[in-house]
Amino acid sequence: MTRPAVTTAAPALDASFLDALRAAVGAAHVSIDDEQRRQYGMDALKKGRPADVVVHPGSPEEVSAVLAACSAHRVPVVPRGGGTGYTGGAVPTAGGVVLALDRLDRILEIDELNLLAVVECHVITGDLQRAVEAVGLFYPPDPASLATSTIGGNVAECAGGPRAFKYGVTKRYILGLEAVLASGEIIHTGGKSVKNVVGYDLTQLLTGSEGTLAVITKVIVRLIPLPPTQVTLRASFVDIGAAVAAVTNLIRARVIPSALELIDADSLEAVARQLETRALAPPGTGAILLLEVDGLEQAAREEARRVDQSCREAGATEVLVAHDQATRDELWRVRRALSTSLKVLAPLKINHDVVVPRGRVPELFALIARIRRDYRLLIPCFGHVGDGNIHVNMLLDPADEDMIARSHAAEQVLFEGVVALEGSISGEHGIGFSKLPFLHLELTPIEIDLLRRIKAAFDPLNILNPGKVFPPQTDGGAP
Amino acid sequence: MTRPAVTTAAPALDASFLDALRAAVGAAHVSIDDEQRRQYGMDALKKGRPADVVVHPGSPEEVSAVLAACSAHRVPVVPRGGGTGYTGGAVPTAGGVVLALDRLDRILEIDELNLLAVVECHVITGDLQRAVEAVGLFYPPDPASLATSTIGGNVAECAGGPRAFKYGVTKRYILGLEAVLASGEIIHTGGKSVKNVVGYDLTQLLTGSEGTLAVITKVIVRLIPLPPTQVTLRASFVDIGAAVAAVTNLIRARVIPSALELIDADSLEAVARQLETRALAPPGTGAILLLEVDGLEQAAREEARRVDQSCREAGATEVLVAHDQATRDELWRVRRALSTSLKVLAPLKINHDVVVPRGRVPELFALIARIRRDYRLLIPCFGHVGDGNIHVNMLLDPADEDMIARSHAAEQVLFEGVVALEGSISGEHGIGFSKLPFLHLELTPIEIDLLRRIKAAFDPLNILNPGKVFPPQTDGGAP
Repeated sequence: MTRPAVTTAAPALDASFLDALRAAVGAAHVSIDDEQRRQYGMDALKKGRPADVVVHPGSPEEVSAVLAACSAHRVPVVPRGGGTGYTGGAVPTAGGVVLALDRLDRILEIDELNLLAVVECHVITGDLQRAVEAVGLFYPPDPASLATSTIGGNVAECAGGPRAFKYGVTKRYILGLEAVLASGEIIHTGGKSVKNVVGYDLTQLLTGSEGTLAVITKVIVRLIPLPPTQVTLRASFVDIGAAVAAVTNLIRARVIPSALELIDADSLEAVARQLETRALAPPGTGAILLLEVDGLEQAAREEARRVDQSCREAGATEVLVAHDQATRDELWRVRRALSTSLKVLAPLKINHDVVVPRGRVPELFALIARIRRDYRLLIPCFGHVGDGNIHVNMLLDPADEDMIARSHAAEQVLFEGVVALEGSISGEHGIGFSKLPFLHLELTPIEIDLLRRIKAAFDPLNILNPGKVFPPQTDGGAP
Repeated sequence: MTRPAVTTAAPALDASFLDALRAAVGAAHVSIDDEQRRQYGMDALKKGRPADVVVHPGSPEEVSAVLAACSAHRVPVVPRGGGTGYTGGAVPTAGGVVLALDRLDRILEIDELNLLAVVECHVITGDLQRAVEAVGLFYPPDPASLATSTIGGNVAECAGGPRAFKYGVTKRYILGLEAVLASGEIIHTGGKSVKNVVGYDLTQLLTGSEGTLAVITKVIVRLIPLPPTQVTLRASFVDIGAAVAAVTNLIRARVIPSALELIDADSLEAVARQLETRALAPPGTGAILLLEVDGLEQAAREEARRVDQSCREAGATEVLVAHDQATRDELWRVRRALSTSLKVLAPLKINHDVVVPRGRVPELFALIARIRRDYRLLIPCFGHVGDGNIHVNMLLDPADEDMIARSHAAEQVLFEGVVALEGSISGEHGIGFSKLPFLHLELTPIEIDLLRRIKAAFDPLNILNPGKVFPPQTDGGAP
């Protein structure tokens, strides 16, 4: 049984290796200056180790040459998209090369007849969406980072977002990939057809593999017709239980909203403070739901009617309905302001993207209430309640050692709790290195060992983003 | 690099091995009688080799015990569902055990709130559909075999069907699996949430792996609300080109029908003969489209109107529209009668499920016309034109050696042609052993080698369905 060799530290970046990198991509695209090394050693997690060298390849062939050099010199290499990840997936843990893919940023083809687009990995997700919407098509996945995150990064992490409840996460829109193996070999997976059962589904295996199996350089994305009509609703409830009852009602009414976001009282208060308003919701509001339905006009109106009724039957104290873009934007303002509002409340915000089966969301909130009390922490929560994917935000002061210790204990209880509720410790952000200590709560040693063997099948030298997804072999447990 | 050991022949089924099987599942569930061995040595391909022994486990634990025994004795083991496959995936090529999963046939849970069902692998697909439709839910994948094929088999092959254009193939509806590795270890992948990015996506990797990586014993399927209204349309055209133009029109009109089936003139004639009617379509019809739209009533009616207009603008000579079930059934009759009608025309029908990007379907039909002429073969075609997935049926007489030789030459030209059209040699049926000689047309040696290494990561002894999906290691090319 082959296992990955453990690469624990970068070899000295000797002159011959740097020469090989310069030969691969041109000297102008190899950087060892401190500012770049630091910048590319950090993502949204705000923890990491500087790169030893940052390389910007300009083609799949140059990616191949860089990886061949890294293989020959046994140097770890970390592929990087927009650097917006929350779990350290795009930053080095053992030094080495950061492979910055920012030069591979072209939309190569938007094929209206075949309902697909072919893009290089570093196309910004929001840019792709605008480009296809201009011709009446739709790329649904909408991670909150879409203004700066890339399609390649979204594929590597299998990004989600509010629309996933109706439309599904990134993996459902990926038809094929061009990718470069650690050895430098270029492979193509899937293709331009929705149906393809020739060989194992490497497209789906690479999607969500966090840059540990191959470097994704090109993506064939599936598109669908752009729904012509959207209706947005915002409903206020006295507590989480009533909001979840509304969700239950609308599923019974057989409506799948294109967005279904829950915001709890703490989050709401933070936003109100930030926006300097007291009028976000009626007094006594303990939770709000933001809902959106879409489709042909008649269908969207009928679904909006059912949503309205489902909320009122669950005891909503207010239901606002918006048909035009300006009013829709106004209803979404509270959700859009959330992330920055929470950051004002504390110097450090740790966002845990736990997920439970939808029906167990009330149990998840009961668990969080216990954690708030037992560990004396401020934990505003919001998220994609349609998927059961709730962002649990621990607001912390890094200077307060006792608080940090309490937060670590609280994380453990949270993750054990979601697994006990048949949930998962990560719905969107991946494992990276920050969630490694908790992987064993969800996967058995046999399953983790299987992941390691798959890793070895792709990357026997363990040079590709080492120290991510699963713990190193040596200790067999926490990293 | 670990490679699968090559198991070329079953060891003698000695008494100690048979004792181990009887201990695993009970003597009543181990059969070595000729009739069962023959029956379980054949699928819809009608080629294969009898099993040495047929074992019927009654639980995942019994599957585990059988696999552990096979590992210990290095005996090949072939998992089998409904036996409806077209590529020999469920039949032994090297003797050994056929693992008949027919006792694992319970629907364990239909969870309306979480929009999912948990089923054992041998639940018949059509039975699951009826059970969930009874509570207003919908499991869309609809392979033609759904009255006899199983969910586990559908997952192993990633089955498609007419609805895949709008709703997607089997993989899009699989949330999680229980599976048994070749070593006997039981693993669980995914779960009850739509979002889960913990570890590699083994759920999707096992889906479509044709029983070569693990034995699937339990499946968590995702359900959606049952669309309340369906409208069926049947449009006649003078030739394939006009029918494809209608498809282009309706994609421009941003309609994605829930079914979009094309039937060519040869197929139509065969059905007319079988149904003893001349009134299937107007005189001079060269192709018909069967279309279905679904959704809320208002939306379905609007989409039906757009479909009707798209067909007329492409020159349809007749468009029939059916809103009620009886008339819809009548329109579908021609499609349902196709398979048996073709079988009457020749003793042997080889159904190739090639796929090309939708926009290249006219080029595919031009290729098929050339093949018909050059190789003097009867090749009626029909299929899922929305996906570009066309069933190319070669009607043959096995007693006519020259015809069989011509058909082999024609297959090669067909498969080379679809790959040149950016297509795939199999959209639904998989590789099994019958398409092994053509795998290298679509995948590079590097890609095939990667599949082998993944296989070795799961099944280092190569006991699990050996000789399927990719050629054995020894010759590195055709099997």
